[in-house]
Amino acid sequence: MAPVKKGIIERLNSGEVVIGDGGFVFALEKRGYVKAGPWTPEATVTHPEAVRQLHREFLRSGSNVMQTFTFYASDDKLENRGQNLRITGAQINEAACDLAREVASEGDAMVAGGVCQTPSYLSCKSETDVKAIFKKQLDVFMKKNVDFLIAEYFEHVEEAVWAVEVLKTSGKPVAASMCIGPEGDMHGVSPGDCAVRLVKAGAQIVGVNCHFDPMTCVKAVKMMKEGVEKARLKAHYMVQPLAYHTPDCNCQGFIDLPEFPFALEPRILTRWDMHEYARESYKAGIRFIGGCCGFEPYHIRAIAEELAPERGIVAPASEKHGMWGAGLEMHTKPWVRARARRDYWENIAPASGRPKCPSMSTPEGWGVTKGHADLLQHKEATSSQEMKHVLEMQKSFPEFSPNTKKHL
Amino acid sequence: MAPVKKGIIERLNSGEVVIGDGGFVFALEKRGYVKAGPWTPEATVTHPEAVRQLHREFLRSGSNVMQTFTFYASDDKLENRGQNLRITGAQINEAACDLAREVASEGDAMVAGGVCQTPSYLSCKSETDVKAIFKKQLDVFMKKNVDFLIAEYFEHVEEAVWAVEVLKTSGKPVAASMCIGPEGDMHGVSPGDCAVRLVKAGAQIVGVNCHFDPMTCVKAVKMMKEGVEKARLKAHYMVQPLAYHTPDCNCQGFIDLPEFPFALEPRILTRWDMHEYARESYKAGIRFIGGCCGFEPYHIRAIAEELAPERGIVAPASEKHGMWGAGLEMHTKPWVRARARRDYWENIAPASGRPKCPSMSTPEGWGVTKGHADLLQHKEATSSQEMKHVLEMQKSFPEFSPNTKKHL
Amino acid sequence: MAPVKKGIIERLNSGEVVIGDGGFVFALEKRGYVKAGPWTPEATVTHPEAVRQLHREFLRSGSNVMQTFTFYASDDKLENRGQNLRITGAQINEAACDLAREVASEGDAMVAGGVCQTPSYLSCKSETDVKAIFKKQLDVFMKKNVDFLIAEYFEHVEEAVWAVEVLKTSGKPVAASMCIGPEGDMHGVSPGDCAVRLVKAGAQIVGVNCHFDPMTCVKAVKMMKEGVEKARLKAHYMVQPLAYHTPDCNCQGFIDLPEFPFALEPRILTRWDMHEYARESYKAGIRFIGGCCGFEPYHIRAIAEELAPERGIVAPASEKHGMWGAGLEMHTKPWVRARARRDYWENIAPASGRPKCPSMSTPEGWGVTKGHADLLQHKEATSSQEMKHVLEMQKSFPEFSPNTKKHL
Amino acid sequence: MAPVKKGIIERLNSGEVVIGDGGFVFALEKRGYVKAGPWTPEATVTHPEAVRQLHREFLRSGSNVMQTFTFYASDDKLENRGQNLRITGAQINEAACDLAREVASEGDAMVAGGVCQTPSYLSCKSETDVKAIFKKQLDVFMKKNVDFLIAEYFEHVEEAVWAVEVLKTSGKPVAASMCIGPEGDMHGVSPGDCAVRLVKAGAQIVGVNCHFDPMTCVKAVKMMKEGVEKARLKAHYMVQPLAYHTPDCNCQGFIDLPEFPFALEPRILTRWDMHEYARESYKAGIRFIGGCCGFEPYHIRAIAEELAPERGIVAPASEKHGMWGAGLEMHTKPWVRARARRDYWENIAPASGRPKCPSMSTPEGWGVTKGHADLLQHKEATSSQEMKHVLEMQKSFPEFSPNTKKHL
Repeated sequence: MAPVKKGIIERLNSGEVVIGDGGFVFALEKRGYVKAGPWTPEATVTHPEAVRQLHREFLRSGSNVMQTFTFYASDDKLENRGQNLRITGAQINEAACDLAREVASEGDAMVAGGVCQTPSYLSCKSETDVKAIFKKQLDVFMKKNVDFLIAEYFEHVEEAVWAVEVLKTSGKPVAASMCIGPEGDMHGVSPGDCAVRLVKAGAQIVGVNCHFDPMTCVKAVKMMKEGVEKARLKAHYMVQPLAYHTPDCNCQGFIDLPEFPFALEPRILTRWDMHEYARESYKAGIRFIGGCCGFEPYHIRAIAEELAPERGIVAPASEKHGMWGAGLEMHTKPWVRARARRDYWENIAPASGRPKCPSMSTPEGWGVTKGHADLLQHKEATSSQEMKHVLEMQKSFPEFSPNTKKHL
Repeated sequence: MAPVKKGIIERLNSGEVVIGDGGFVFALEKRGYVKAGPWTPEATVTHPEAVRQLHREFLRSGSNVMQTFTFYASDDKLENRGQNLRITGAQINEAACDLAREVASEGDAMVAGGVCQTPSYLSCKSETDVKAIFKKQLDVFMKKNVDFLIAEYFEHVEEAVWAVEVLKTSGKPVAASMCIGPEGDMHGVSPGDCAVRLVKAGAQIVGVNCHFDPMTCVKAVKMMKEGVEKARLKAHYMVQPLAYHTPDCNCQGFIDLPEFPFALEPRILTRWDMHEYARESYKAGIRFIGGCCGFEPYHIRAIAEELAPERGIVAPASEKHGMWGAGLEMHTKPWVRARARRDYWENIAPASGRPKCPSMSTPEGWGVTKGHADLLQHKEATSSQEMKHVLEMQKSFPEFSPNTKKHL
Repeated sequence: MAPVKKGIIERLNSGEVVIGDGGFVFALEKRGYVKAGPWTPEATVTHPEAVRQLHREFLRSGSNVMQTFTFYASDDKLENRGQNLRITGAQINEAACDLAREVASEGDAMVAGGVCQTPSYLSCKSETDVKAIFKKQLDVFMKKNVDFLIAEYFEHVEEAVWAVEVLKTSGKPVAASMCIGPEGDMHGVSPGDCAVRLVKAGAQIVGVNCHFDPMTCVKAVKMMKEGVEKARLKAHYMVQPLAYHTPDCNCQGFIDLPEFPFALEPRILTRWDMHEYARESYKAGIRFIGGCCGFEPYHIRAIAEELAPERGIVAPASEKHGMWGAGLEMHTKPWVRARARRDYWENIAPASGRPKCPSMSTPEGWGVTKGHADLLQHKEATSSQEMKHVLEMQKSFPEFSPNTKKHL
Repeated sequence: MAPVKKGIIERLNSGEVVIGDGGFVFALEKRGYVKAGPWTPEATVTHPEAVRQLHREFLRSGSNVMQTFTFYASDDKLENRGQNLRITGAQINEAACDLAREVASEGDAMVAGGVCQTPSYLSCKSETDVKAIFKKQLDVFMKKNVDFLIAEYFEHVEEAVWAVEVLKTSGKPVAASMCIGPEGDMHGVSPGDCAVRLVKAGAQIVGVNCHFDPMTCVKAVKMMKEGVEKARLKAHYMVQPLAYHTPDCNCQGFIDLPEFPFALEPRILTRWDMHEYARESYKAGIRFIGGCCGFEPYHIRAIAEELAPERGIVAPASEKHGMWGAGLEMHTKPWVRARARRDYWENIAPASGRPKCPSMSTPEGWGVTKGHADLLQHKEATSSQEMKHVLEMQKSFPEFSPNTKKHL
């Protein structure tokens, strides 16, 4: 059961491009196995065939990393979200590891155990309490002997650092990925500073995932890289963005777009958008390139196809595609056959078929977040009115309070 | 192994709403098991787990019909498309039946054996030859004892009639569905006239599938219904449209849109669009309501949720949703929780996040098709130049000649 | 002061293209001399310099017709609209004639006296009363010896016929132009039937103006031409559309668009759209080609430039333009100089700079109109509820009742 | 003939809001009196009635400033642009002063003599030569005794400073306005630094005009204000933006948009956009608020209407409008009457009627400009290839070389 393949750090050190997988919660929500809102992964126990199948599709599409489907699977989150099931957190996490390992062994993939941000942190529990939560998941990952660890989807660098510190105790390689954009974390800590803190805490790979579209994420990782290099530190870089166009979102990302989470369809990236993303990531020096919410297997395949020349590897699923849509050469209509070429797809500006919809939305919720952020960054300028507003927010949404932890 | 459930005609006669499934070729293309261009279903043999999983997801989402994944599985198509695999057409068709039956037996679903348009017809083979092709598939369906039969995706009513005539010999109920819009078939035969011919040939259910968005398809089926009623005939009605918005396409449907098939993402319908579609279908008197290309399991679930009051059935997958997004009540951010309500989603006009793209495209290929259609309908007016153009088209694309069969 | 130039009918009989002018109410509203809502032309008396200047700009741009600025200048309209000015209808109409004549004499233009639809008709006054209203304006036109007469902007063919009958008594050439689209007048009388009735009443020129964009208007005039030719009658044709894109409006035209009248800016046609319009009109056999609401002098100039090869005339204002933007050859920036060519402008798809706005609107008021129209056309099917609705509409908006005159 | 009204500085010192006029070149281009490309104002001599009328319309709409129509009327520009007319620069400038004075005397307006950037500067003439050019125009302004002076439309702060230095010799109040956005001038000098240099050179009013949409311009002026205040200097502020939405343009503004100058229609601001602009300007502490290219009289009227409460003045042209579209209360259709209210227009998101056009464009020419700017700012990093590119640009477009003056 022990990993015999080349490890993540060996691969990255040797200059290899490692392809990640896509986000499980969104893909399985569409397939009927995850509930939007709680977003918890009990399907590892209740419907293992669905989780296994999705792993397999990503593997076939070229993924080298099978992330355990353990997003929001910390005990505090599962309780908080009303898991009255007779399934324990340990069961969910163990089943996730087994499924990832089973499929990883079918191809050239590693298993990565993943933790993410916790309600405990957001509701101001102590560092000890929060770390204990991460430790529980880590125990499962160690028992199941995953190949490396990822701390991902953190909005607050402090919590991400705590997670890295816990994961580091294992001796396994640790990657740390925040769900932030170029504006930085919820306290306004810049991507560069976040990255430096994560590397100092022991992360060997740093980057961003979720919340923003590919180009925005690549930009944020570039800022991380600049920060790390300026601090004369060393790291590898990863990026796992949304598969949605989000030019119009604010610092909290796609959550605040009015279309989240049930009307994001018009924003879905095409496979050709993914080619562009893969190329930009590569040019930016990022070598662990994957996806998050919205990614379907064909999106990962597009990354693999774009980087096939560099990697010298063609994904199994490309047998059912052909580079730049070559399969269309066998289409019935001659004008569709004529689309089996790179420049056609590279230059397409796809219509939405929705003439009564705009191109861009106005994010909601921004005022609240902004209010908090301003408050935190300019404490001296805080009027009593602002303070009152934040305290009211706190009271109404005890779990929420994104920016206020321990600072008020 | 014999079906013990209520049959399709019994259900429709009793006023039940029967929910169809979604299109397999597009869904499995995104998952990496079908090649766009040939669009053939050899995955039933090579990757049965992927086909089985998709059947299961539709079943969980509320489908009552498991269509055998036998689209483009006629022998002439498989040869034509370069199936050098050591897999026979019979093997593909048999495996498809077994998979559909296996999953159907897990819930309240029937198995429908499906045939569709053939290269033999388009390349001007005789009625005898074309019928022989359908007969081969029918033999498999009879051996595997499917519950009913569907002749679908026909652009030419003549070929659809031939298919119905073959399928009728089985004694099983027959549904006939054309891939046409309100403008009728490729020879300009109106939906009403197509429907009358199909009913006279023996189809008990008539309708349309593929090629157009839901509202356009519902409109075409309404025209069929009017035609059938005017002819004092009787039938049930079905509709299985695209899950893409296509207000800008011409009579040949989404094939001619420049985005077909690899840049259709911005056109994908939301689940809320599906609610509207389900309601309109129901109001139009259509009782077999499903989907075709672009449909994912959550789209089918939306149909089931919209018609839950009428049907008194909640699909298993709705456990992971809640009507009108009720699951969001458990989301972390308060402003996202506030979206757990019907009027929010009913009124959303989703942005595309693509400010450099238009809303509508200009279809390609239309000139060619139009040239043919005009030629056929106004033979007397055909200039020698037009004739020359068509003959050239014929020569360049021998298989193509969509409208010209036997008429030139 | 008597006209010595070639008359309108002589010009049209000889195959000449006659270029109309643009709409005065919209242009002068933007300049500050007409009030949107009442839309009355008292500026002919209060600010003659502004009216004169606009006439001059159209003349310089190539117009051969100076329409008297007498839109909504019938006595009943002026009263109705609260003209408490100490200016009589006769004064307004006389001043309008003088201004048109003054400018017409500066170039190759004729003066056309214009009447349009009246509140008297809409409030169910008798044929005698309505005709008396038209007669008053005609008396001024005869006194001022205009060159020909235009009955324009009629939504109801019956009223248009009455206007033509009055104007015919003068012995001057009469043109009749309705503000309808391809769906016909407010009672559903088709464009072809409207045209036939107008020609039979004595109009020598028939066409449409206002309410729809150029391509829609050209389509409606084509239908008029087909109707007239089918009835074996003879006429000349005119078209004076909006300078706004209105693909999304219903049978009542741009009035019902939510942007009317103060947010139509994004819909304004470019000069290049006008080239296309002029060419289409010409190809359709229309020889009196002008504009209505939204037209600015440069729009008329574009018509003149497009048809310069056919007409052999270059408008004075083209000295300040150059065909297809040739003037840009003298621009400072080299990449702007590169735009001084036909294919650049012919192919441009101009952006709106408004990513939060849709491409199309949903017309308001349609229900009301549609309710009326249905009622009128299918009297037998009228439910008592529909009847109640219409009667309520009537009571609430006594002047309105667009489709109900004398029929209820 | 001497001005007896309150001067510009007295007004601004007393906190009054001064309303500017709109841009003459674009408005008169549409009316047929200015040629796009050269953009020169010879119409002051050849068609004074057209220029006078436009002045009057702005005056009636609320303008307190009649800018002499002397844009691009420096002798070097007139020659350069091929003015083979037998009209001298002095004649054009004198006529412009007379027209502005004539109309200013009809209401509460001042006359402002204006100079703008010169070809002499762009073609690397000496400070002495460039200043001599400005001095010639100033001589006319002094002879005609204008009320104050404006140096406007400068892309290079150095040239703007020279202009201010010349104008200051007159003893008249001097305003200085650059055509820059938040990114600063063509050499990357920030708005704040530009403003400081202009104030130090003697400008009492500083701001921006042209090139960007209102909100972008207001943002740039805010940055100027911050710069001036940080330098402990004192100034008044002005803003005269485009009447076009330009969210997609680069640092050189709307010139580089592909729609410039003949397809900008979909970008035109509504009167309601102008309300928002006026309010934002006022809130930013700007007290000289006007317009530039694209402004029509009704746009200026909207500014006056928005600020009527603060100013206590209603413009004459508002008699033909009514606040927030009140005139619609007299419209025929009841649903249009229902639009005579503030919240209707304040919230409208106007459609373009162009479903095949995008919302945003990609600016042209940027590469060139960017190449220059990079070159200038990072001289040490200039590769020989970049240098070669710039030198080639120089040779091909001798007059152009926007950023390279004296630096190469």
